[in-house]
Amino acid sequence: MKNKRRSRGFSHERDLVHRLWEKGFAVIRAPASGAKARRYAVPDIVAIKQGVVLAFEVKTIHNERPVYIPNRQVDKLLEFTKRAGGKPYIAVKIIGITGWRFIPVEELEETRGGNYRVSVEKIHNSLRLPDIVSLMLGNKLLTDYASIGEEDS
Amino acid sequence: MKNKRRSRGFSHERDLVHRLWEKGFAVIRAPASGAKARRYAVPDIVAIKQGVVLAFEVKTIHNERPVYIPNRQVDKLLEFTKRAGGKPYIAVKIIGITGWRFIPVEELEETRGGNYRVSVEKIHNSLRLPDIVSLMLGNKLLTDYASIGEEDS
Repeated sequence: MKNKRRSRGFSHERDLVHRLWEKGFAVIRAPASGAKARRYAVPDIVAIKQGVVLAFEVKTIHNERPVYIPNRQVDKLLEFTKRAGGKPYIAVKIIGITGWRFIPVEELEETRGGNYRVSVEKIHNSLRLPDIVSLMLGNKLLTDYASIGEEDS
Repeated sequence: MKNKRRSRGFSHERDLVHRLWEKGFAVIRAPASGAKARRYAVPDIVAIKQGVVLAFEVKTIHNERPVYIPNRQVDKLLEFTKRAGGKPYIAVKIIGITGWRFIPVEELEETRGGNYRVSVEKIHNSLRLPDIVSLMLGNKLLTDYASIGEEDS
């Protein structure tokens, strides 16, 4: 339980909540995992803007390594977005190295054990917050990632 | 704080979460109030179905009396639904007497102190869960409330 809390990186999660709020989303964080409140499929963070729903499992790591996601977490995310409508993402941050990066669930690599994995290269080349906001709100994708370095603070 | 928890009626809240889940909604409960997680406007319960968003403040009472809602809770609910899109409700249950009743925020009475109130009569005559589900999903409102007594368990 303690370990799970660490891996969710609560203070970093708050940072992501704040950034989504600043972009005009209504944002809600799930209660601490393990609570009875999470018997149902609930992502770490849900952000909604005018009926457009983004659902996130949040992973923060402290060095450049692949991220592993248990299949039950992916199933939970998919069940939620199937009901809500909207798009499921894994939100990854390598603390002190990258800003937030967002991997759509359909782009996860499956491991031999039936779980999921995101490579270091994939983390570095994934979407940033302005990209997914543009995508979801129907604007065109920002193609010049280099121009939005302010998201990397 | 202890009192606030009681007034939210957590176990009853779980019952409402369960009913919304059974109706096919993705459902998320806010973390316990007072937590840092609730610096932003977050309703007690948010339910989403295919981009349709319902936001609830939950009030459970133990006898037939009016329900009072502080204006900051109403403001919070309105801020959330303004961002998310969707409809803000006060969910009220008189334990052992009524099932869940739903009062749209625009139907609240304002008190002289600038807060809000729902009369006992209003509670009894308010929408039930199947009504708001039908309303939100674009079906016609069930006009015969008497026929849906199974929601009163």
